[in-house]
Amino acid sequence: MDNKDYDDDFYEKAELLPVPVEYRGKENVEHSMKRTLFIIFLSAFLVSIGTIGFASIWVELSNELPIKRNVILMISDGFGPASETFARDYYQYVNDLHYNYTTSLDQILVGLSRTRSSNCLVTDSAAGATAFSCVKKTYNGAIAVDPDKVPCGTVLEAAKAIGMATGLVVTSRITHATPASFSSHVISRDMEDIIAIQQLGDYPLGRQVDLMIGGGRCYFLPNSTVGSCRGDDRDLITEAEKSGFTYFSSRKEFDDIDPESQSIPLLGLFTLDHMSYEIDRVPSVEPSLKEMSEKAIRILEAQTAHSDKGFFLMIEGSRIDMAGHANDPGAHVHEILAYHQAIEFVTKYVDDHPGTVLISVSDHETGGLSLSRQTNASYPQYLWYPDVISRIKNSSYALSMKLTDYWKDDRTDYVKDTILRNSLGISDFTDDEVNFLVENQTRIDYEYYMANLTSWRARLGWTTHGHTGVDVSLFAYGINTGPLHGNHEVIYIDYDRKVS
Amino acid sequence: MDNKDYDDDFYEKAELLPVPVEYRGKENVEHSMKRTLFIIFLSAFLVSIGTIGFASIWVELSNELPIKRNVILMISDGFGPASETFARDYYQYVNDLHYNYTTSLDQILVGLSRTRSSNCLVTDSAAGATAFSCVKKTYNGAIAVDPDKVPCGTVLEAAKAIGMATGLVVTSRITHATPASFSSHVISRDMEDIIAIQQLGDYPLGRQVDLMIGGGRCYFLPNSTVGSCRGDDRDLITEAEKSGFTYFSSRKEFDDIDPESQSIPLLGLFTLDHMSYEIDRVPSVEPSLKEMSEKAIRILEAQTAHSDKGFFLMIEGSRIDMAGHANDPGAHVHEILAYHQAIEFVTKYVDDHPGTVLISVSDHETGGLSLSRQTNASYPQYLWYPDVISRIKNSSYALSMKLTDYWKDDRTDYVKDTILRNSLGISDFTDDEVNFLVENQTRIDYEYYMANLTSWRARLGWTTHGHTGVDVSLFAYGINTGPLHGNHEVIYIDYDRKVS
Repeated sequence: MDNKDYDDDFYEKAELLPVPVEYRGKENVEHSMKRTLFIIFLSAFLVSIGTIGFASIWVELSNELPIKRNVILMISDGFGPASETFARDYYQYVNDLHYNYTTSLDQILVGLSRTRSSNCLVTDSAAGATAFSCVKKTYNGAIAVDPDKVPCGTVLEAAKAIGMATGLVVTSRITHATPASFSSHVISRDMEDIIAIQQLGDYPLGRQVDLMIGGGRCYFLPNSTVGSCRGDDRDLITEAEKSGFTYFSSRKEFDDIDPESQSIPLLGLFTLDHMSYEIDRVPSVEPSLKEMSEKAIRILEAQTAHSDKGFFLMIEGSRIDMAGHANDPGAHVHEILAYHQAIEFVTKYVDDHPGTVLISVSDHETGGLSLSRQTNASYPQYLWYPDVISRIKNSSYALSMKLTDYWKDDRTDYVKDTILRNSLGISDFTDDEVNFLVENQTRIDYEYYMANLTSWRARLGWTTHGHTGVDVSLFAYGINTGPLHGNHEVIYIDYDRKVS
Repeated sequence: MDNKDYDDDFYEKAELLPVPVEYRGKENVEHSMKRTLFIIFLSAFLVSIGTIGFASIWVELSNELPIKRNVILMISDGFGPASETFARDYYQYVNDLHYNYTTSLDQILVGLSRTRSSNCLVTDSAAGATAFSCVKKTYNGAIAVDPDKVPCGTVLEAAKAIGMATGLVVTSRITHATPASFSSHVISRDMEDIIAIQQLGDYPLGRQVDLMIGGGRCYFLPNSTVGSCRGDDRDLITEAEKSGFTYFSSRKEFDDIDPESQSIPLLGLFTLDHMSYEIDRVPSVEPSLKEMSEKAIRILEAQTAHSDKGFFLMIEGSRIDMAGHANDPGAHVHEILAYHQAIEFVTKYVDDHPGTVLISVSDHETGGLSLSRQTNASYPQYLWYPDVISRIKNSSYALSMKLTDYWKDDRTDYVKDTILRNSLGISDFTDDEVNFLVENQTRIDYEYYMANLTSWRARLGWTTHGHTGVDVSLFAYGINTGPLHGNHEVIYIDYDRKVS
């Protein structure tokens, strides 16, 4: 992770406001901050008419509905159409289910979302998430600022403005592009130092997020601390606690939370960096996405029990994307299955709480995954092999970390037995494959190489370690989600009332 | 094309019926044919309750609707989710349209279709089309027979059985897997000799298809004729005319057809093999998919003008798939744009004829197309280049045919100027690229190589020359197509009444 040199006068350094350089004295910065405040409130108000307005559609349309409403927006980062087929076929195979098995997502499919950003046919996760949060197309890298780098009000800020409780649950760093785009405004996703500060409320709007659970403690620790990613010496954990946050970082503390009695704001950061891939996760150390989602929902539900306003919660399956970047099919499929479990819980919650609506969507596809791969010049067979994937026990990322650290005399046996046979389920390895892993490579070269060993054997194809432009699937559940049926530009997902 | 040695006693040779070998005397073949007849009628009846029954759903549900109904099933062979994004982005780019431009397909998206066959996670077009035609999963290669190789009644036969007019419009050979699966029953798609015979009515059910327009004359010509693909000397064109078909093979004859006065049955075969790719098509020689669709609809409409029954028409954009097999982005996108035009016409027809329903679906994806491609080890940019595609003037297939034939002394200049600069729009070619094309290669090696020259430069990725398993998009238009919303197993598309 980069340790960038930002100080706390971040509005100026971040060029958050389009203020000419000659006016950037202290007074003008204060003026700029007031202007920022006005812009964010104005756009948050507009968003509240638009995005949160979506939640009000069914209230307008149905007299039977309760006034109180909750919006749960779930984002499957980097999850394209092939990812869903992959996960469904895999799950059906390993559990020997009938071919017409459908996942919790399949059952709530409503359409497709078009993903391009304002400056590119292929979006990044920052522009992708800003499209959801601000209902605006913006440039790749932008965190809740428009193409002119002017802050735009987010759906989370709009929810807060109308009195709803708000939350973010992720498996990445909480300062990563997707959660950041709901809870901060900076011109570049790399400014995670600043994003963390804003997420705690140290920005013109004050605290907007009531609950944050995920990874990424490193951007909250002063740079004098082992594991910190910050460029400055601010101790954001202590600052958070002083400003009223309950902070926790362990599984036990998480388990001990009683949603009924837990106060907000709440900040839970289990790991310095991203949380573990689901395939590597140790349940006694880190909860699953479903467990975090359930806890968050119960807390927000309790917080709003005596209010006529409900809650807005963004839940992200953050690392579906990262496994796509690595072209790692084992990690990818288990991230998706974990997401399915979270979706299953939320759909049941919607059943029990008819004032709640669930929207699930991806920002983009990652990796160019396809479910067949030509591995030689002869005409390919029409198949891929889920059994290859079923034998994988760890992510290539975790194994690459091990390989980078292990230099004992028995390294060749370690590669053959621990890495290939036991962890990747590969017993037909070649000498060249063993030699590559025994020799000294970069960590990422190990990771990509191992991911390809399994992908190749499973006949799964990838075309890039970056993102691709294919439309992604759109899912929704809850009464009067009819307007979401069909094919939508991403920025029309939340509020397009014209589609019938 | 293969010239296989089939004779007209095809039921036995084709092992169409599961009759033990020891019983295959002449009498038993006659018995078998009766049994075939019964099986087809029985399953056609069941399909008529199911598939065609779909068309009756809205009649049951709405008193305002006319009794007479038409079903237009459009099949975009080999068209996956990325193909649609590709074509939309391309069309928007070359016509300088707003980013929120939507295609005629986007506007009628209703869900996704799961495509696997009975014996494979990745289907071929025969099993894919049989799933549509018979509402049954079957094995790859099967043409309207079930996994036990027993014939299954098709939606076209069911339509005919209840008095509707029937038609097939394709851009492939009319005997190719998709149209064959609606109008014949053989155990292998390669049996095109037999498929042609059955399509003309020489099988137990008698003639079922009233109108066929497309390519593939070669399977109708006796093997003594130049260009024939048949293994026998049957002249099916003459047989067709004797049995009442009007036959035509030229653009002029096509244009001269007056739908109001044209009799059925009608057989139009413009080319010996598949019709030309849209990007190569000479309009004065071959009509477009839209033109053929319009003419077919007008003829079937006129034929049923005084009947209380309407028509069933299957229209296939056959060669979207073939361009995918070649990994040829220029040919692929123009096939899709031609399909969009046909869809646009049919949706307008549905607007004007509320008793008509349009369903558009693909059998599978082909090629593993993705809209971004990593071309070196450094982290890829998030983009692809439609301008590269906009400069392509011919399919790599057509150019490969030219290259295979051109051996004059100026071959190097021919490669540089005619092939690369003028036809592929590539001016930054390397010596290695020129040398490959100048040297003697197989035709298909030329084709694949040129397709990769443009794909690579456009940053479009492919993973195979075969099919892939991703869910494909499902489109529908017409009243009460609500049951088609969502994610469906392919065999539930036509008749699933339970989904609300």
